[in-house]
Amino acid sequence: MIESLHEECGVFGIYDSEGAAESTFLGLYALQHRGQEGAGIVSTDGDRMYEHKGMGLVAHVFDEDSIARLEGKAAIGHNRYSTTGLPRVANIQPLLVDCRVGKLALAHNGNLVNARELRSQMEATGSIFNTTMDSEVILHLIARSKEETLDSMIVDAVQQLRGAFSVLLLTKDSLIAVRDPQSFRPLCMGVKGDATIITSESCALDIIGAEYVRDIEPGELVIVDERGIRSRKAFEPQQQAKCIFEFIYFSRPDSKVFGENVDKVRRKLGVVLAKNHPVDADIVISVPDSSNTSSLGFAQASGIPFEIGLIRNHYVGRTFIQPSQRLRDGTVRLKFNTVDGVLKGKRVVVVDDSIVRGSTMKKLVAMLRKAGAKEVHLRIASPPVKFPCFYGIDMPSRSELIASSTSVEGIRQYLGVESLEYLTIADLRSVVDDPDHFCNACFSGEYPIPMASGLNKSVFEDSAVA
Amino acid sequence: MIESLHEECGVFGIYDSEGAAESTFLGLYALQHRGQEGAGIVSTDGDRMYEHKGMGLVAHVFDEDSIARLEGKAAIGHNRYSTTGLPRVANIQPLLVDCRVGKLALAHNGNLVNARELRSQMEATGSIFNTTMDSEVILHLIARSKEETLDSMIVDAVQQLRGAFSVLLLTKDSLIAVRDPQSFRPLCMGVKGDATIITSESCALDIIGAEYVRDIEPGELVIVDERGIRSRKAFEPQQQAKCIFEFIYFSRPDSKVFGENVDKVRRKLGVVLAKNHPVDADIVISVPDSSNTSSLGFAQASGIPFEIGLIRNHYVGRTFIQPSQRLRDGTVRLKFNTVDGVLKGKRVVVVDDSIVRGSTMKKLVAMLRKAGAKEVHLRIASPPVKFPCFYGIDMPSRSELIASSTSVEGIRQYLGVESLEYLTIADLRSVVDDPDHFCNACFSGEYPIPMASGLNKSVFEDSAVA
Amino acid sequence: MIESLHEECGVFGIYDSEGAAESTFLGLYALQHRGQEGAGIVSTDGDRMYEHKGMGLVAHVFDEDSIARLEGKAAIGHNRYSTTGLPRVANIQPLLVDCRVGKLALAHNGNLVNARELRSQMEATGSIFNTTMDSEVILHLIARSKEETLDSMIVDAVQQLRGAFSVLLLTKDSLIAVRDPQSFRPLCMGVKGDATIITSESCALDIIGAEYVRDIEPGELVIVDERGIRSRKAFEPQQQAKCIFEFIYFSRPDSKVFGENVDKVRRKLGVVLAKNHPVDADIVISVPDSSNTSSLGFAQASGIPFEIGLIRNHYVGRTFIQPSQRLRDGTVRLKFNTVDGVLKGKRVVVVDDSIVRGSTMKKLVAMLRKAGAKEVHLRIASPPVKFPCFYGIDMPSRSELIASSTSVEGIRQYLGVESLEYLTIADLRSVVDDPDHFCNACFSGEYPIPMASGLNKSVFEDSAVA
Amino acid sequence: MIESLHEECGVFGIYDSEGAAESTFLGLYALQHRGQEGAGIVSTDGDRMYEHKGMGLVAHVFDEDSIARLEGKAAIGHNRYSTTGLPRVANIQPLLVDCRVGKLALAHNGNLVNARELRSQMEATGSIFNTTMDSEVILHLIARSKEETLDSMIVDAVQQLRGAFSVLLLTKDSLIAVRDPQSFRPLCMGVKGDATIITSESCALDIIGAEYVRDIEPGELVIVDERGIRSRKAFEPQQQAKCIFEFIYFSRPDSKVFGENVDKVRRKLGVVLAKNHPVDADIVISVPDSSNTSSLGFAQASGIPFEIGLIRNHYVGRTFIQPSQRLRDGTVRLKFNTVDGVLKGKRVVVVDDSIVRGSTMKKLVAMLRKAGAKEVHLRIASPPVKFPCFYGIDMPSRSELIASSTSVEGIRQYLGVESLEYLTIADLRSVVDDPDHFCNACFSGEYPIPMASGLNKSVFEDSAVA
Repeated sequence: MIESLHEECGVFGIYDSEGAAESTFLGLYALQHRGQEGAGIVSTDGDRMYEHKGMGLVAHVFDEDSIARLEGKAAIGHNRYSTTGLPRVANIQPLLVDCRVGKLALAHNGNLVNARELRSQMEATGSIFNTTMDSEVILHLIARSKEETLDSMIVDAVQQLRGAFSVLLLTKDSLIAVRDPQSFRPLCMGVKGDATIITSESCALDIIGAEYVRDIEPGELVIVDERGIRSRKAFEPQQQAKCIFEFIYFSRPDSKVFGENVDKVRRKLGVVLAKNHPVDADIVISVPDSSNTSSLGFAQASGIPFEIGLIRNHYVGRTFIQPSQRLRDGTVRLKFNTVDGVLKGKRVVVVDDSIVRGSTMKKLVAMLRKAGAKEVHLRIASPPVKFPCFYGIDMPSRSELIASSTSVEGIRQYLGVESLEYLTIADLRSVVDDPDHFCNACFSGEYPIPMASGLNKSVFEDSAVA
Repeated sequence: MIESLHEECGVFGIYDSEGAAESTFLGLYALQHRGQEGAGIVSTDGDRMYEHKGMGLVAHVFDEDSIARLEGKAAIGHNRYSTTGLPRVANIQPLLVDCRVGKLALAHNGNLVNARELRSQMEATGSIFNTTMDSEVILHLIARSKEETLDSMIVDAVQQLRGAFSVLLLTKDSLIAVRDPQSFRPLCMGVKGDATIITSESCALDIIGAEYVRDIEPGELVIVDERGIRSRKAFEPQQQAKCIFEFIYFSRPDSKVFGENVDKVRRKLGVVLAKNHPVDADIVISVPDSSNTSSLGFAQASGIPFEIGLIRNHYVGRTFIQPSQRLRDGTVRLKFNTVDGVLKGKRVVVVDDSIVRGSTMKKLVAMLRKAGAKEVHLRIASPPVKFPCFYGIDMPSRSELIASSTSVEGIRQYLGVESLEYLTIADLRSVVDDPDHFCNACFSGEYPIPMASGLNKSVFEDSAVA
Repeated sequence: MIESLHEECGVFGIYDSEGAAESTFLGLYALQHRGQEGAGIVSTDGDRMYEHKGMGLVAHVFDEDSIARLEGKAAIGHNRYSTTGLPRVANIQPLLVDCRVGKLALAHNGNLVNARELRSQMEATGSIFNTTMDSEVILHLIARSKEETLDSMIVDAVQQLRGAFSVLLLTKDSLIAVRDPQSFRPLCMGVKGDATIITSESCALDIIGAEYVRDIEPGELVIVDERGIRSRKAFEPQQQAKCIFEFIYFSRPDSKVFGENVDKVRRKLGVVLAKNHPVDADIVISVPDSSNTSSLGFAQASGIPFEIGLIRNHYVGRTFIQPSQRLRDGTVRLKFNTVDGVLKGKRVVVVDDSIVRGSTMKKLVAMLRKAGAKEVHLRIASPPVKFPCFYGIDMPSRSELIASSTSVEGIRQYLGVESLEYLTIADLRSVVDDPDHFCNACFSGEYPIPMASGLNKSVFEDSAVA
Repeated sequence: MIESLHEECGVFGIYDSEGAAESTFLGLYALQHRGQEGAGIVSTDGDRMYEHKGMGLVAHVFDEDSIARLEGKAAIGHNRYSTTGLPRVANIQPLLVDCRVGKLALAHNGNLVNARELRSQMEATGSIFNTTMDSEVILHLIARSKEETLDSMIVDAVQQLRGAFSVLLLTKDSLIAVRDPQSFRPLCMGVKGDATIITSESCALDIIGAEYVRDIEPGELVIVDERGIRSRKAFEPQQQAKCIFEFIYFSRPDSKVFGENVDKVRRKLGVVLAKNHPVDADIVISVPDSSNTSSLGFAQASGIPFEIGLIRNHYVGRTFIQPSQRLRDGTVRLKFNTVDGVLKGKRVVVVDDSIVRGSTMKKLVAMLRKAGAKEVHLRIASPPVKFPCFYGIDMPSRSELIASSTSVEGIRQYLGVESLEYLTIADLRSVVDDPDHFCNACFSGEYPIPMASGLNKSVFEDSAVA
């Protein structure tokens, strides 16, 4: 999409592999789209644990030296996009602590909705917290558990959590994964020779040449150690609430998540969009690269030719100079340019995956007009985003979501397009096999977990970092 | 393409504009694909000249502070990809020197074939050289000219040059452009309000909202100063030798170069490829992003559906960790991943723009097979590259060019594809309006300038930088 | 001294001062000699707390921007010299955590001898530890205290500690200091206008123009907040064990510590050395700068002229290139050079403050001989160091202390000097007013606190940082 | 001195030594006091030349890797303090160019007074200049010489120079030194095994264990190559003009320069000061470290005890935070602190080497008063500095030199001291063996070279570096 939504994190773990840290590095590199603020890896050689973290892209945080110093045959890693406070290395995962069970490292994807209460309760009885991350609560619950074995301590801990968690843990001699019973966030297992890998998306298996085996099941605890792989049900079966936005936008199209090929689902979004919201036009264009697949689906289903009408500058970095007022209007030009010969005099269908605030799309539409588009028809491969996410997607507040207060016709007028159509929630449900097991709260407001005390993300007051 | 060819440089100059340096920064940013090793800007406020250079991407070299210190209403900038010696800041352009005409800065795109002789002659008569760049020769020739006016000095200087040069010069009070009579490299002029811009590709005009006016003509000298824009013919008209590779690969599809839309020509390459080298297959895929446009042309002309079968990781940086031997086979996986659902069981046409060494394409083909492609048909939107370029493209030596010693059938077997077809030179000539005015030496070996003394690039012995 | 002993840390806190962070920066800068590995500052504006830390010298860690972002009128800071594990930012103080009392920051000088037990006990009952520092134990004890008010919680916590601790705490609205009852490490209070300052040495008061008021008393808890300054006795009076090495080497000569001018005591060390261990010689030289004051005392008491025979290179940095074997012999030359005209043909008395391993002194003696010294008489302004310190000085292990296994005559022969004399413990006791209240365990082996379980410093297994 | 004067540069060259670059690094490290802005080394292995340069201290610019890459058995290096324009790497020496004689590197200490004319003449006839340094002129003169051999070309070149130059040149196979006939700046030769070293001060010989052999003679050209060491007179003998300030302040006291031990001459300055400008006082203190030696001379000659009344913070870095207005008064406190016990109630003689602007000394005097000094008597170990230097010392302009417009009595009142005495020029002449061969222009205004066209330093207009 034109505007960015951010999810907190990709995770990757590997057990019993020479060069565990290098594989973890490559896995994080394949998962870079899930978080660009910082990255970290913790490894173990069975005796000592090793850690390296930093701000920025994976390829910037690690070099050959730092990877070589991450010794051992097991490792976990984490990509982070931060949503609270200023960026600080202390908030980069994996978190590595000492506690009753020895050294313990954690990497977490998802958001907990009762982190605030848990944290208050534990502070009241003597715990101290070093970060502003909800993830730290999980470590405290494990450390405080009265159970006797590590896996029982973990089960005891996670049963107190409410919200989304795809978690990897590393001890000196084991890799452990646990997933919330509603399985909001993806987590899958792969294998390469003797090595077991557990990670967010299958594209991270592909990059190291590992084979996809299966998803970690909802509520499942998996322990990988020298005795092999053991599984344990940490929760009773529940209705799942898999994040449909993983298909719409987050996951890479070459990944398999929630057991389905992202590409296949995303293609169907475009097909349904074309069938249910047709338009008479000359060409279909995408907003590269996120809506390429759904645009192609739209073009094939509608018979309108797919064209490349926008070029994306792939050198856009994270810390880009903010152009001065004089050039401000052109900010969207830093990221995209029009291919004028393609657009001139044409009735153009633009397919995008979603609209959040709408302001950037408005500028893009103006660019298309300037390039000579005769008509601009916008087709959105998801329903209007009206509600914030509490399970791991960093969305603007409700008041900033244009669709929460504006009708589709109002948005159409604001954007200045000839027509605007979204998918309906029913359309969306039609593209997945088990629609009742997906969360669509950001479209419907029907949250699968009742809110106890508001969004924890905004609750922990961060200390600023000067 | 899968493997990278590199051209030395993009240039951008602007005169009479508030925030000249910021515009130059944005222009270089749009031209980032023409050189990623380093970048520099020199500006003038009419009295002093200001300079900032650095290694790396444009967005890394400059920040708000460094741009703010580049005062004045005129500036030139340069993106560099270096081919000789170790990277060193001294080799980043623009070059800024003091000489008879005062301060003089130069940014050069192209390669001179008689730089070696000129340099030897000038050293013999007392000149000293600070860099290993052929571009420095141009400054010396200007400084040594016996002519009385700056424009005559420049004409005198460039008439001694043989080879490719699209050059920008900046003095305290003027912006000057000069282009070789064969016009190997692109150079065009734009306007925005009072400001005149001269740059390599029109995408650099778009990013600042300027309008394309015309190309700098072959052999033309253009001077922009407070008296306005003056033009002068520095050379008699000659047969031109415009680089056809700008259309095939280098230039951005949203640019206009040599007076034509790159997108339009590149599309035709795909169309001709489909018509003259047809194949019976299920899908057409590109090697993103460089062959997207020609693939689309191929798909539309052939009627075979265009699909997205490869995903490119856009976080690939310049200084990437070299994977260890264990993971070496998978290096191409760092850049691309397959979309298995798209490829499985399909007869796949892969369209790429060119093949240089062939080794990376071989790995890609293996990936496609592993993803389940039933057949792989490779279609190359250019003729076989058999000869090195001496006019500004950094190609491997002839012995490394697979097509210089291997037949098409031999390459097909090496790559392991069901079929392989290239465009012919005649095909290529058919897509441009004035085929006699293009250089196709890398395909035909017919060099438009006879070689005096070998390739100067490899001639200057570089001092190493510790 | 020629070889370096390192103490863990200098601390500085200030309350009710505009620009609290800038003053803290200057204070840490004046205390740089107490720790060069890293530095940090935490400040508070009464509502939020701000933090900045980094590896390296104070002037490197902070710049104007980072200081400006440390808002508020109260702050604490810390200089660290690390003794365990690899340097890592997580081990830089102040530690800043959330706990029952809200945000709490801690800066600690000294070493705890029962940290290992306390940590094990707390881990067993659910605490998690993020660092390898004994200091973290103090925060946990405070967070776990059942007391109701912050000052009672702190008293409850510190009463469980054994060892050396001069501690500063910062909350959103108060600055708190507490010192162990034996007062191993210095801690003093100063005033400047409305501001109250508490810091390790008075030189940190001088640099900001504050006036010395008094030492924090042994076992005293001081709370500074909007109600003013309150004091509370946290311990019953005990025999003190002030570190005599603060006078011998650590503290700056321009500081007042333990209520006495360092310069005055250090001078007396030289005077007693001259009187009790006289020698017939031509000149007295110091090993600059640490023995300048005692050398001057020796010269004045002996009547032998003080001369400058060694020049110290003050550009020696922390991360210095290790010379290759070829130049290895000359390592001491990187730090010192001889003034040959002063030394040639002379009988030289060298006064140094202490000898640890002896190997560097041996090289220095050789340099003096090469410069022409006819005789070299070494006079050491302290007794032989035979035992390690457990209260905050980072000494080599006992086996590396030359005096633990070698007689004075043996050391003399090893060093190759005409004579060698140390102060006796009785000499040492004669220079301070209250000798029974000083710790001289490193000379006598009489440790003021019986060892429970060995040295905690080496106990916490560190995770390595790649 | 309290305020800093800066000289442009230290140079070091070595021929026929394994690890030439490492030795050069150590030599530059010993010469760090002669320039802290940047440093560079060029080495040769007989075939290729290697270069590394950077901004900052020597120990910062080089690390083990960069030194290892500087291959070969000969090298030259340079420490720079820049006086014009913004710091830029292009202005760091050695300069390395290609010219008629092949690769040629130059390191220059001193200032040329006719660089402007030479540069203008050469620009007029076709030369281009890349830096704003007068040193570049020397390379151009060599490159343009019509002589046939390198040594004749160098003689031809330097005979056109007027001013101060101690120059080292490096070619692929030789190390060359040349010194101006008035020998303003020091340059000496040493030997270590087969290696020949030529450097600014003998302390750079000491650090690598080399032996001092002799000074390079006024006007001498020395060539060291595989045939051995050859010497040639480049100039007729002239009256020398050795810089007396090398003895007063610049050179290290452990060095031998101009054939004399700096320490010995500096001691005599203090002795003469005590004899000719006595005072009745209790103690003598220095401003560490620059006036330590002259203070000791004063103390011994006067019989007044030498004391340590000021402590210098040796962690002062180059890029120190500028304290805010609130703390501005205390800036001198960042560098020095008083030892109050020493000063209290005493009549204090402060010996310093020189006074430039006077403003910092005024603050120091105030600090001494605050520390309780009853009387402050200032004794300056040089005459009043009234005139700028054109031969390599970076002094403030004449209007900023307090003594150029203020009588000694006026300065005394401004500083607020009980008495102030300088050495006379006659005093100064009495301490050296051959006073007629020293330059004392900064005191007397009697410049040994008549000014042709003003100070070249300010003449080259620099381009700014953003």
